[in-house]
Amino acid sequence: MKTIAKRSEDYSQWYQDVIACGDLAEHSVVRGCMVIKPYGYAIWEKIVATVDGMLKERGVKNAYFPLFIPESFLEKEKKHVKGFSPELAVVTHGGGSKLEEPLIVRPTSETIIYESFSRWIHSHRDLPFIINQWANVVRWEMRPRLFLRTTEFLWQEGHTAHATLDEAEEYALMILNEVYVRFAQDYMAMPVYTGQKSEGEKFAGAFKTFCIEALMQDGKSLQSGTSHNLSDNFSKSFNVVFLDKDGQKKNVFQTSWGVSTRLIGGLIMTHSDDKGLVLPPRLAPVQVVIIPIVKDSNEEIFSAVKSVAKQLSKFSVETDLRDNLSPGEKYYEWEKKGVPLRIEIGPRDLENKAAVLVRRDTGAKESCPVSQIPKRVEEILEDMQKSLFAAALKRREESNKIADSWKEFEKAIKQGGYVFSYFCGEESCEAEIKKKTKAVSRFLPLDAKEEEGEHTCIHCGKKTAHKKRWAFALAY
Amino acid sequence: MKTIAKRSEDYSQWYQDVIACGDLAEHSVVRGCMVIKPYGYAIWEKIVATVDGMLKERGVKNAYFPLFIPESFLEKEKKHVKGFSPELAVVTHGGGSKLEEPLIVRPTSETIIYESFSRWIHSHRDLPFIINQWANVVRWEMRPRLFLRTTEFLWQEGHTAHATLDEAEEYALMILNEVYVRFAQDYMAMPVYTGQKSEGEKFAGAFKTFCIEALMQDGKSLQSGTSHNLSDNFSKSFNVVFLDKDGQKKNVFQTSWGVSTRLIGGLIMTHSDDKGLVLPPRLAPVQVVIIPIVKDSNEEIFSAVKSVAKQLSKFSVETDLRDNLSPGEKYYEWEKKGVPLRIEIGPRDLENKAAVLVRRDTGAKESCPVSQIPKRVEEILEDMQKSLFAAALKRREESNKIADSWKEFEKAIKQGGYVFSYFCGEESCEAEIKKKTKAVSRFLPLDAKEEEGEHTCIHCGKKTAHKKRWAFALAY
Repeated sequence: MKTIAKRSEDYSQWYQDVIACGDLAEHSVVRGCMVIKPYGYAIWEKIVATVDGMLKERGVKNAYFPLFIPESFLEKEKKHVKGFSPELAVVTHGGGSKLEEPLIVRPTSETIIYESFSRWIHSHRDLPFIINQWANVVRWEMRPRLFLRTTEFLWQEGHTAHATLDEAEEYALMILNEVYVRFAQDYMAMPVYTGQKSEGEKFAGAFKTFCIEALMQDGKSLQSGTSHNLSDNFSKSFNVVFLDKDGQKKNVFQTSWGVSTRLIGGLIMTHSDDKGLVLPPRLAPVQVVIIPIVKDSNEEIFSAVKSVAKQLSKFSVETDLRDNLSPGEKYYEWEKKGVPLRIEIGPRDLENKAAVLVRRDTGAKESCPVSQIPKRVEEILEDMQKSLFAAALKRREESNKIADSWKEFEKAIKQGGYVFSYFCGEESCEAEIKKKTKAVSRFLPLDAKEEEGEHTCIHCGKKTAHKKRWAFALAY
Repeated sequence: MKTIAKRSEDYSQWYQDVIACGDLAEHSVVRGCMVIKPYGYAIWEKIVATVDGMLKERGVKNAYFPLFIPESFLEKEKKHVKGFSPELAVVTHGGGSKLEEPLIVRPTSETIIYESFSRWIHSHRDLPFIINQWANVVRWEMRPRLFLRTTEFLWQEGHTAHATLDEAEEYALMILNEVYVRFAQDYMAMPVYTGQKSEGEKFAGAFKTFCIEALMQDGKSLQSGTSHNLSDNFSKSFNVVFLDKDGQKKNVFQTSWGVSTRLIGGLIMTHSDDKGLVLPPRLAPVQVVIIPIVKDSNEEIFSAVKSVAKQLSKFSVETDLRDNLSPGEKYYEWEKKGVPLRIEIGPRDLENKAAVLVRRDTGAKESCPVSQIPKRVEEILEDMQKSLFAAALKRREESNKIADSWKEFEKAIKQGGYVFSYFCGEESCEAEIKKKTKAVSRFLPLDAKEEEGEHTCIHCGKKTAHKKRWAFALAY
């Protein structure tokens, strides 16, 4: 039987073990690609349903654009193609012949979508123009890690067009704050910072990139979602223009934003422990598992199990009546799958008209009268959702550091967690910081207070443009 | 403004016009690929939600497998690769280098999925093994038609493994009858025949292919879904074995089955008319549109419109309050989008505490007291769902023909609709029939009665193996 490495001993192995033992996904024979197994895919389905619902509530409509992009399209936005070209998969043959123009398997769809926008958008009445697609994308990955970095991954990519730069900025921030932050915190129980990326770290082709970043248990930061203000960079390249109220033809201002299967990596690394996966109740495909404590099949106990399951129909419940595994083996299996709550029913419980409830995160056990189970399950799941968030937040806050000298910075970065420091924001300076410490800036916090006075870059000593400290960290 | 060709004058143009005017989809700049626009994609989302729900009710779990398949995998099943090789898109370069082995963009996923099955399935306890994926697939298309034949399309592909051939057969038929037939008839209001494909028309690599086939308004048949009994053809190639109860290692028997965005083509061609799209209420993204009959904005009328919309919250309702279009222009637009029911509210209606309901399929108008609207809407939508099915069924039944001589057959085929004839089932004979008439066999009906006595092939005159007539037709 597969065992799980300890986080403290081999974090990277632990991550792989949690995924394997939780039966979430595996590396495919196709290098860099993953197979998402049914249990892992069920988590993705919950993510999709929730995020999709949040987007639709805000008027976003889904559409679908081609998998393939003509090579010439990508080249229309110079920074964009430069950023993506090392990662492209290229189709050179189709239907038995060599293609006249190679096709790129989409790494992201700005170019192919904005070509459509240029034909669809005519007037200010068409704005804002807001669509989203759920799709697979391909970015060639030399060092794949399941969910975190894979050559093919699944995501949503939203694309909008607006009449003004301000409206684009406002929309990019609305998606970040109202959808991504709320989803991460309220559903994934994963505390996130919001911020703006540096020039060196922003999306290839964006004017500004906003992000949510979360701290993983090994002290590294995971970029968990991005929302870009593209300004008119792409609309100029693809000639997306509209007739404004004043009778003038103008370029639209655009945004794009996405979250991906990477979120599942973040979910795993935020909550799981040395016993395996821990899932927040709101995203757990199975919220409650009921296990009969019997040697062989026992009709009385089985019918008690089924009757409790029936009472819990508003939750997603599994009853594990397999006759080839002992109760202990079943506990072990469901524990590794991160099921928030286990209910055990044995002969003694039956006598007492009770059952034992065992919570996955704390391991706390309690006996509960059968009549009270639905109420108690609801309370425990709600409490677990909150306390997973609180624990992750505490861990992050306790590891936060401020560094106002290079010496402090170098020391702090090694300890993990976010290190907040003044920074000039320049690409060349950031590249040197990375070379020396492996860390890059993660974001300029959106909600940090500005500090009066002049500040100088932690590394190069130049005067900084922003009166806030940037967050630095080692990152995935 | 785009207009719609008449079916009787140019059916193929009519089909394209209905799609363009309904704002469903368009050809992409990438040859053969389509862009599914938000309104078209909303129909697909309804199809996905319904079919996915039906599959989940039957215990099917979703997973996700890679987009790319190593070329050598496809070659493992000889008939399979032969069937698909003219249609493949090939990735030769990835991450800036030439690949050692080219990757095929999946045309279907039997090979890549069954490689996983060979590692996942060990014992009879693992059987039946049942998964499904919702994915995009690519089959190079020289003569693309939106929804019907596109290089990239969206679909679900289910894959199962069973202990015996009988169980595989039973499962393939269960999916056909309980999911595909019921979805087509109860939701799409599209009558379908179930049948088995001939040797020449079956899936490349299958033992038997079962299908649902529907008659379009031009008298051609559309293969709308298939379910394959793969026997142990793939499990032998990919070494998918299990330890049976008797201690023997055995190959599993498999099925695969799918429906795709092609269903939208079938939906369009089953119900739409010369005024544009007609959608059955159960799959319409907008079931009811409410239009104020006013010249300019009129608060009293607008609030009546909103109040009726509120009463109809169990339906999906749009209120069209745009001030730059006349009521007539709005009627015309929603008619082309196939919205099942239009409600008009003008000053006179307001006075009478009534509204006018206009049904999309028949054009029937009625005045309805405001208090009765929810009840009446429900009745009309239910009736429309049924009568669309009945009309399509009637059209099909009236065009059915029996041909028991080659002369009758040739004449009948030209008239459109299904022609039922005895047939030897042989590939070479079918190829000749196709050459002479452009028609092929569509299916051997599953539910037709066997006719006593000996029967001879309509074309070659040989004695037939089946005591049923096959259905022939021109086809998409």
